Amino acid sequence: MYELIIIGGGPAGVAAGVYAARKKIKTLIITESFGGQSLVSAGVENWIGTKLVSGFDLAKMLEEHLRAQEEIEIADGDIAASVEKTGEGFLITTRESKKFETKYILMATGSQRKKLNVPGEKDFEGKGVVYCSICDAPIFKGKDVAVVGTGNAGLEAVIDLFPYAEKIYLFERTEKLKGDQITQDKILSNPKVQPVMMAQVEAIEGGGDLVTGIQYKDGKTGETKTIPVGGVFVEIGAVSNSDIVKNLVQLDSRGNIIVDHKTQQTSDPGIWAAGDVTDVLYKQNNISAGDAIKAVLNIDDKLHKK
Amino acid sequence: MYELIIIGGGPAGVAAGVYAARKKIKTLIITESFGGQSLVSAGVENWIGTKLVSGFDLAKMLEEHLRAQEEIEIADGDIAASVEKTGEGFLITTRESKKFETKYILMATGSQRKKLNVPGEKDFEGKGVVYCSICDAPIFKGKDVAVVGTGNAGLEAVIDLFPYAEKIYLFERTEKLKGDQITQDKILSNPKVQPVMMAQVEAIEGGGDLVTGIQYKDGKTGETKTIPVGGVFVEIGAVSNSDIVKNLVQLDSRGNIIVDHKTQQTSDPGIWAAGDVTDVLYKQNNISAGDAIKAVLNIDDKLHKK
Repeated sequence: MYELIIIGGGPAGVAAGVYAARKKIKTLIITESFGGQSLVSAGVENWIGTKLVSGFDLAKMLEEHLRAQEEIEIADGDIAASVEKTGEGFLITTRESKKFETKYILMATGSQRKKLNVPGEKDFEGKGVVYCSICDAPIFKGKDVAVVGTGNAGLEAVIDLFPYAEKIYLFERTEKLKGDQITQDKILSNPKVQPVMMAQVEAIEGGGDLVTGIQYKDGKTGETKTIPVGGVFVEIGAVSNSDIVKNLVQLDSRGNIIVDHKTQQTSDPGIWAAGDVTDVLYKQNNISAGDAIKAVLNIDDKLHKK
Repeated sequence: MYELIIIGGGPAGVAAGVYAARKKIKTLIITESFGGQSLVSAGVENWIGTKLVSGFDLAKMLEEHLRAQEEIEIADGDIAASVEKTGEGFLITTRESKKFETKYILMATGSQRKKLNVPGEKDFEGKGVVYCSICDAPIFKGKDVAVVGTGNAGLEAVIDLFPYAEKIYLFERTEKLKGDQITQDKILSNPKVQPVMMAQVEAIEGGGDLVTGIQYKDGKTGETKTIPVGGVFVEIGAVSNSDIVKNLVQLDSRGNIIVDHKTQQTSDPGIWAAGDVTDVLYKQNNISAGDAIKAVLNIDDKLHKK
């Protein structure tokens, strides 16, 4: 029986693993891969202390730091498929039907951006198709870009792009923008922004290694059109990977795990959560790492100090 | 007039500076130096993503990442000496009598460990004299060490050392240990621990580059004695560097700035705080960086999105 099982291998899972190992907490980390959502980023410029690193190399740095710990056990290439409460803790069953028992759980399972699921999207992921405006807006200096989605996430992506992009095409499927009116007003008063209404994105076009345009069906005329852009920001929402504990802990209306933001504890006293799977206001790699460390130190307090 | 002045150049200040620059917030950072308290650490093994780095090199990494931002202004080598409220924001005066106006402030001023102020302490800082048991306990594998201070911080340092140290001498000036009884009981039942009561530490002895012993006056006999140890953990408390805003924001009983742990906002709607200066439960470099990013993104929301 483990004292702690960490589920996830992104910045939260790795930070938790490093601290848990140093605290000599008997820990297993279950993760399919390392690095989290940044894995596909061409260049990460906001991992603090590192001027520029590819998502792939950041993932490698994280994995190496974790594996340098003597005391950590790692079940990689596997996924936690279910969590059940037992008398003394929890039983976790993986997709490969392995079973592990643990006293405490740290959910570091992250979230997934909703995809457009159109041709070209996957091919140009990290090559102009991006899902994080806070992270990637500065890369598009002087370029024309498209933002797909007009909820608050889409509108805020437009604002993140104001200082950088030359022209911003804002794609909306219906006749009306969504998101807060005050933010809509601010956006529409900026000459950089051109809304493209009743537009159904059909494909992302590219040449060589970079996005060159966005193809859509114009709902007013039925025509298929293309606008040349150097980047496409997909902002149609994200889904927290909270499914396996949804019957055990409290979630907010968006499926995020609600935590106490001092301790990262959930509504179940044996389950903590950190990073993008939680109701944290901002989803960023360094925030996930810091909050995961709070969780592990709180778990250590509970195991050894209280 | 700046939109934001960040005070401090440790992990919190630098993380905030990088994000503020990327958000094109008109920002000034005022700091005497970079790197924060880790600057004096011989080896940092828990800066996530970096297996091992000296405190000096970590400080350099942080400074370089900050200076790589085009848009940030830096007033280094100076210290913010006072903060006054003005009609539109705040006026900050530095020790060198420079004056800066700003709409918002982020306090990233950290804390200072209380020192013993005995001969040898400064000479062997980072060479056996350490102030962070969570960070440095693993370095003392197989060694005899002294912990000075028996409040909860001292007792918890002893617990952090259990998996590593061979023998732990726990120094207390009075006849009674302090800290929680339950933690005292746990510590005293471990044969590794030897309390040294009514002991006034007088000096830290060393040879070459390493601590070799701790010299103290035995209050019962008046004699001066020395115990050979390879490390001295000074755990007699810390002081948050919150003085310059103590009349503007709410502090807890220990002088930490009380923040909302989702947004890092203080009781003054124009002042945010992150890192060791706050009432965060655990004071660690990556926690400071993550929380500072929450603060800046919240400030950006307030400046540009709401």
